[in-house]
Amino acid sequence: MTTRIVELRRGILKKNDELAAGLRRRFGDAGVLVLNLVSSPGTGKTAFLEITLRELRARGAKVAALVGDLETDNDARRLAASGAPVRQINTHGICHLDAEMIGKHLAGWDGVTSGDDASLAGLEYLFIENVGNLVCPSSYDLGEKIRVALLSVTEGEDKPLKYPTLFNSADAAVITKMDIAEPCGFDRELALRNINEIRPGIRIFETSAKTGVGMQEWLEYLAEARA
Amino acid sequence: MTTRIVELRRGILKKNDELAAGLRRRFGDAGVLVLNLVSSPGTGKTAFLEITLRELRARGAKVAALVGDLETDNDARRLAASGAPVRQINTHGICHLDAEMIGKHLAGWDGVTSGDDASLAGLEYLFIENVGNLVCPSSYDLGEKIRVALLSVTEGEDKPLKYPTLFNSADAAVITKMDIAEPCGFDRELALRNINEIRPGIRIFETSAKTGVGMQEWLEYLAEARA
Repeated sequence: MTTRIVELRRGILKKNDELAAGLRRRFGDAGVLVLNLVSSPGTGKTAFLEITLRELRARGAKVAALVGDLETDNDARRLAASGAPVRQINTHGICHLDAEMIGKHLAGWDGVTSGDDASLAGLEYLFIENVGNLVCPSSYDLGEKIRVALLSVTEGEDKPLKYPTLFNSADAAVITKMDIAEPCGFDRELALRNINEIRPGIRIFETSAKTGVGMQEWLEYLAEARA
Repeated sequence: MTTRIVELRRGILKKNDELAAGLRRRFGDAGVLVLNLVSSPGTGKTAFLEITLRELRARGAKVAALVGDLETDNDARRLAASGAPVRQINTHGICHLDAEMIGKHLAGWDGVTSGDDASLAGLEYLFIENVGNLVCPSSYDLGEKIRVALLSVTEGEDKPLKYPTLFNSADAAVITKMDIAEPCGFDRELALRNINEIRPGIRIFETSAKTGVGMQEWLEYLAEARA
């Protein structure tokens, strides 16, 4: 059975890669910067994204978000409070988003769209918040330009070593919840060293959605990445 | 391809269930209470288990642990400091433990064993720390008697609603890191309500590995479960 699984898995990933390559072309043609946010459940992806959407909109940017969860539309409702168009993808048991799910949720975007890629042409930034999972999303390209691995100060500094596939495939790393670094006994030097061991030279942002620390640097990075 | 995946997945789970049933018989015959600890990465399974092993050993109990991670033996080394026999299972990319992995790691246990089930006969408690993942481990029975879902105060009170499969299949829930509940703005009532909505009447332990709060109640629960 193992051989069949390996073959089937290879087939699934190959098909996903093809769909993702198509999405990447569409995103590039439409001039929209697409980011895929991946982390453990509870790292604070949604809180981080709430501020990001709000701040980008305050600067006049055209932003939108897709958010994946097994169940509930809690996150979409939180993100929609920013005023940005947001869509929830419920995977109903699937532990990651894939390129096909993204493709299906791009069409006919309310408030942005008319037609198909018209929706994308109106956008500058599209954020995809993946299902909370440090393992499975790593293997599924969503056509993003930037994969962001998030890690909170509460999770233990060795997570990059224990989940190398994600950190190794990430373009940027975001440390969240810096406001509670002290009560959590967070060892900053060790965390930075571990991230750099897996992905040398990666851009790292140390942030807090509560105090706003690190967000300015992050927003500048986004503007540069789009330019 | 979807039909083939569904069929294959059904086959894999069926095979796992058969192996798990065999393990459950072995564990029952040997009189060892087996627990499967599942949570998000960074919830504090290892810290919680460190205290549990140490306290049980201080009471003269025969305990051991199996610990799953994609990579590294960090957790096994941490747990071994308790003096209990511990084995690391590296899954190398697989996002959960399965019954076959458990079976393979039971034989010839150093320091406890001679022969095969001789190792189990010497044990009273076997703790299995799963790969940090709130999704995939839910589907894989490991032959445990008690499945424990852990959730830290840092992760957001809605996790039981967003990951219902795990909480719905759990026999006990453990809330960790109660010592930092206040700086995290943890809403205790909401968390308890959400756990109870998914799994009404489940035993819930509110704990801190740092202060030791809630551990007495947990240890009493373990003793009762074994009796």
